[in-house]
Amino acid sequence: GVGADSDLYINQAIVFIEDAIQYRSINHRVDSKSLWLYRWYYSRTCQWILSLTITVILALAFIEEPSSLTVTSDVRYRLPAWNPPCGLTESIELLCFLVFAVDVSVKSYLIGWKEFWKNKWLMAYILTLIVSLTDWIVSLSFFCKESVRVRRILRPFFLLQNSSMMKKTLKSINSTLPEMASVVLLLAVHLSLFTMFAMLLFARTKDNQQDKEWVVYFRNLPDSLTSLLVLLTTANNPDVMIPAYSKNRAYSIFFILFTVLGNLFLMNLLTAIIYNQFRGYLLKSVQSSLFRRRLGIRAAFEVLSSLKETPASAQQSCVSVGALLQVLQKVEMDSRCKQAIMRSLKMCSCDQLSAAQFQKLFEELDKDAIKQHPPSPEYQSYFMQKLQFAFGHPYFGYLGNVVALANIISICVVLVMDADKQPSERDDFFLGAINCFFILYYLLEMLLKILAMGLKRYLSYPSNRFDGLLTVILLILEIATFAVYGFPHPGWRPEFMGLLSLWDMVRLVNMLIVFRFLRIIPNMKFMALVVTTLLDLVKNLRAFAGILVVVFYAFAITGIMLFKGAVVPLGNTRYFNFLQGAQKNSKAEFTGSCVHISLWLTQEILYFKEKKVISWCSAHFQAGVIYCLLYVLSVHLICRWAKIYFVAWWLISSVIWVNLFVALLLENFIHKWDRRCQRESLSDIEYQRTVELMFRDVLEEPTEEELMEKLHQHPHLQLCR
Amino acid sequence: GVGADSDLYINQAIVFIEDAIQYRSINHRVDSKSLWLYRWYYSRTCQWILSLTITVILALAFIEEPSSLTVTSDVRYRLPAWNPPCGLTESIELLCFLVFAVDVSVKSYLIGWKEFWKNKWLMAYILTLIVSLTDWIVSLSFFCKESVRVRRILRPFFLLQNSSMMKKTLKSINSTLPEMASVVLLLAVHLSLFTMFAMLLFARTKDNQQDKEWVVYFRNLPDSLTSLLVLLTTANNPDVMIPAYSKNRAYSIFFILFTVLGNLFLMNLLTAIIYNQFRGYLLKSVQSSLFRRRLGIRAAFEVLSSLKETPASAQQSCVSVGALLQVLQKVEMDSRCKQAIMRSLKMCSCDQLSAAQFQKLFEELDKDAIKQHPPSPEYQSYFMQKLQFAFGHPYFGYLGNVVALANIISICVVLVMDADKQPSERDDFFLGAINCFFILYYLLEMLLKILAMGLKRYLSYPSNRFDGLLTVILLILEIATFAVYGFPHPGWRPEFMGLLSLWDMVRLVNMLIVFRFLRIIPNMKFMALVVTTLLDLVKNLRAFAGILVVVFYAFAITGIMLFKGAVVPLGNTRYFNFLQGAQKNSKAEFTGSCVHISLWLTQEILYFKEKKVISWCSAHFQAGVIYCLLYVLSVHLICRWAKIYFVAWWLISSVIWVNLFVALLLENFIHKWDRRCQRESLSDIEYQRTVELMFRDVLEEPTEEELMEKLHQHPHLQLCR
Repeated sequence: GVGADSDLYINQAIVFIEDAIQYRSINHRVDSKSLWLYRWYYSRTCQWILSLTITVILALAFIEEPSSLTVTSDVRYRLPAWNPPCGLTESIELLCFLVFAVDVSVKSYLIGWKEFWKNKWLMAYILTLIVSLTDWIVSLSFFCKESVRVRRILRPFFLLQNSSMMKKTLKSINSTLPEMASVVLLLAVHLSLFTMFAMLLFARTKDNQQDKEWVVYFRNLPDSLTSLLVLLTTANNPDVMIPAYSKNRAYSIFFILFTVLGNLFLMNLLTAIIYNQFRGYLLKSVQSSLFRRRLGIRAAFEVLSSLKETPASAQQSCVSVGALLQVLQKVEMDSRCKQAIMRSLKMCSCDQLSAAQFQKLFEELDKDAIKQHPPSPEYQSYFMQKLQFAFGHPYFGYLGNVVALANIISICVVLVMDADKQPSERDDFFLGAINCFFILYYLLEMLLKILAMGLKRYLSYPSNRFDGLLTVILLILEIATFAVYGFPHPGWRPEFMGLLSLWDMVRLVNMLIVFRFLRIIPNMKFMALVVTTLLDLVKNLRAFAGILVVVFYAFAITGIMLFKGAVVPLGNTRYFNFLQGAQKNSKAEFTGSCVHISLWLTQEILYFKEKKVISWCSAHFQAGVIYCLLYVLSVHLICRWAKIYFVAWWLISSVIWVNLFVALLLENFIHKWDRRCQRESLSDIEYQRTVELMFRDVLEEPTEEELMEKLHQHPHLQLCR
Repeated sequence: GVGADSDLYINQAIVFIEDAIQYRSINHRVDSKSLWLYRWYYSRTCQWILSLTITVILALAFIEEPSSLTVTSDVRYRLPAWNPPCGLTESIELLCFLVFAVDVSVKSYLIGWKEFWKNKWLMAYILTLIVSLTDWIVSLSFFCKESVRVRRILRPFFLLQNSSMMKKTLKSINSTLPEMASVVLLLAVHLSLFTMFAMLLFARTKDNQQDKEWVVYFRNLPDSLTSLLVLLTTANNPDVMIPAYSKNRAYSIFFILFTVLGNLFLMNLLTAIIYNQFRGYLLKSVQSSLFRRRLGIRAAFEVLSSLKETPASAQQSCVSVGALLQVLQKVEMDSRCKQAIMRSLKMCSCDQLSAAQFQKLFEELDKDAIKQHPPSPEYQSYFMQKLQFAFGHPYFGYLGNVVALANIISICVVLVMDADKQPSERDDFFLGAINCFFILYYLLEMLLKILAMGLKRYLSYPSNRFDGLLTVILLILEIATFAVYGFPHPGWRPEFMGLLSLWDMVRLVNMLIVFRFLRIIPNMKFMALVVTTLLDLVKNLRAFAGILVVVFYAFAITGIMLFKGAVVPLGNTRYFNFLQGAQKNSKAEFTGSCVHISLWLTQEILYFKEKKVISWCSAHFQAGVIYCLLYVLSVHLICRWAKIYFVAWWLISSVIWVNLFVALLLENFIHKWDRRCQRESLSDIEYQRTVELMFRDVLEEPTEEELMEKLHQHPHLQLCR
């Protein structure tokens, strides 16, 4: 019937507008039931359940064997990690798989059969699920005793496929790969030629005293390659040169040449290439988002214009205001935008909207939300007005900063004076007293500001919220301290009792005070610019961070699988246990390897094997170096795999990811800087800037033809014309 | 008289055109005598003498006390360095000072008294000379026994003031300083806030087992600051975290936060800022060079047009062709350009040249020198033509590359097989035989190519020159080997005799073969692009490298002065001598400190004090660790100064210079890349590209008004109109 038809059109328009708001693709089924399913699938609850499932399945690694999530990482003190019984984590996994199965079937259904075959991500999703389920069945049939669990390495895929931003970023990275591969090839050529040179230069001689360089670093091809690869990371920088240098200074030329060519030129060339490839990345991605938005709006217009309420007289298709109002009421969107659109719709005198007018209405979505602070209260009394003027003045804020600085300095002085004192000699009277004074001042400042600005206006500034929250916490802590330990008096000793001793309380208060000092940031122009750039960067970097998590996870799991139980017992059992623990601790442990790996973002990784293990061992056990040497020996046995693993890790995390990060930072910062110079005059208006807005003046609006062509290619929507 | 006047004008024109060619400023005296002096001053001989003087005075540090330029740097084996008698280096210095005095007086005279007062560089030059001379007199009156020699630190100034490029670059760096200072300030704030946090977090506790973190890294304010500063360079990356991490894993959050904020964000922000500031640097510098060239040509035109040979009828001033020819014959310039200009001057039918025509003539200077290879010889015989086709074909070159690769691989195989053999077990027969075969092939290849291309055409390709030269050297080496040791036969033992044993000969040949393999570079497209970018970069980087030399020199000399004799004798005399030597060796020695410092471009520096010294000592002496601990202790005594010195060094060389380098590389590479995409089709023509040419299509031509305004501001030239 006509009513059902018009209901369908209305629903289609609602979904298309929601697609436009969320920058989603409109290529999905558009019949009534599918639309209901679509809205249900993209409802907050469903998406939240999906995210939760992904988080849960990723977090499982922290409690699964061989993880050891304990407070301390010191094998001497730590309790054995909780080992979940067989079947617990597996049943959680099964639940997650079920959710994913529902997810993949809904997604596949919604895009339709024909599109499904073109969508490689969905196929890979199904494949991953099948492999995971098979592995799960194998696992259960071995009663969780099997050693290789393929499905763990596949887990990060679930995170990857759920985010369109991450998929897009991955595509971008993929397109940079050929150039990166060229530079990596160049690096490899550089490395191998210099390795041959080195082997010819530092050959074995008759005199054993003279060929230290050969013995330590260039004994054979793998050793030479490793030495120079490590030199490329600069981790063994002066060491590798010193035996040769002490024989003849001229040998240093070789090492300097290698370092300058490899490290200064080729490595930075990689940065240049990646930056060059990524220069248009942000702009392109924002441009495609804009296209999706315009397309969604246009699709909504087209389906609404098919509603036959309108006179079919005009060649131009139109949409009636009433239908649009009906749609708008059901669309889920930001209430501010909705109201603005409604308002301009009512102000518009006409009854019919053309395509251009329709688009124009929804441009409200792209606009900056200019933040307006509520007005200050107006006081009658002259005295109150004076007070309001005084405490609303920026100088009062500056005074607050000065006081905070004074507080920091006083804490610093006390810290320096108390640095070498025994805990029993300490007297917290002085610090307690001055902190008490300062916190009272902070409270006063907050109250006076609220008086001057009114509570609403006060809270509308983020810096005030930060300030006020910390002041309240400090006040509560201080009151709690006084309630338990009394007021500060000479000999107010920091006693060690329970969870929160006076000593801990005072330290916590001090830390919060140091943290509160960050309120000065918005007052310094350059700092504010830098901080906003960094915040922007964090927003844009979410996709990158996601990919990094994926890579971390895969590396950590691979590391566990590779190095688990690889240590051969060499000493007696007691030390064997130690070594086992140490090895587990440093490599085959999820928590540890995540943290370690994240700290090895820098060039330390490759040197680890020789130097760091020893220092780590001696720091950890203090039981002498001999066990550590045993340990290093055992690591050497698995050295080949470890080498490949660490080189891969170094290339991906340290070289490529850091360079990608630098490229994005350059891109972001330079855009921001250029804009800053243009908008200097407007800087007093607070914008809630998004990436889209940053590029607004360089974006191209899609043309009508492009939009209509795309609409006609829609696999499920049959437009009348 | 009129003749004298016209001679003067001709001479002025000559000098102005030479200024234009060399991109020099034209603001100098223009009377006859001054012009003669000017041409003499900028003659090749004079400039060469000046450069030599600068080199000599800088090189003096290598032989002056306390330098120790010996072959080995190992204190156990090395002979005492040659100590020049008092007065030798001093008299060389005096000679240099005299040359500089002449230089500064000529320069001052030529720019004129009024300009002199505006020129800060010249004033600083004179001041430096006066201070140096005073210091020299003091030095002689103490019979070279004085400890502080200020004039040594001032020496790099002579290098700096002599290069206009370096002065310009320094100005650019100077304008970047405010932004850099902001980021460095931000880093300092970051560091100090985290230091306070760390001191509160890792405070001393009652349990001595528990506060390892406090004992080792956060004992007091300077220690904490150092620990975190070193963490910023990532040199102590996992170490500093491990005691706390083994107590409670949550502590790692602190370190990760610090590293990510400081190292990933703030450090890379510095790169972004420096790149942002330097984005226009190359373009601006090339633009100003272009302006100088146009100005010089225009000035030549103006003075030639004052020659009253021309009829004064036209309002437009003109230059007669005859006068220009007269000038051109005397101008020193590239003969190719001169001929091209002469040719177009003769082709021009007119007798008088307007300003525009005059400028157009000299545009030949800006043009690419399109390199034309001489033609191949034409053979009559059909057989010879066939041969010429076969060996002139690119495939013959590829075959040569394949053979070179095979040679490399065979050397590599022999190296791997011989890696662990004692020298006495080695047999060089196999390698000798195959190398002999390969070198014969290389000779044949060279001869056939010469046959096919003719000698002239063969030599016109740089890759052929490289190839041919190496082949000839290899041949000579091989013949010498055979002459001394006979032809290869089984049991052809590498004997150790004298300067060039068979063993050394074979190694040298192998190294040259590896080096010859670089001929493949032009055949790989991406590699060729990268290599040309790097070569361009080296050209543009000369100014930066000069400034780096200045900084290195100043740091090395300061280091010597700070750390000379700072070691307090702790053990008995024998070990004291060792320590003294070690200390001298690692710090208070010019050669050593230059090399060391250049290798410490990376973040190793700050960690040096604690780790590197120990490893260096143990590698060097193998006499046990105890002396090294003594040594470290003595270094700790001078630790404050060393810390400041090394932090300054790290900031300047590692942070700022490397970032400048990256910025320039980005700038160069991105321009090159953009151009490559445009000129893809033209790539078969060989251009001798300069920076000027790279930017040719974006440069703006200066307008007539700008040029004339600048000409009228000339302090010495009075134009008629």
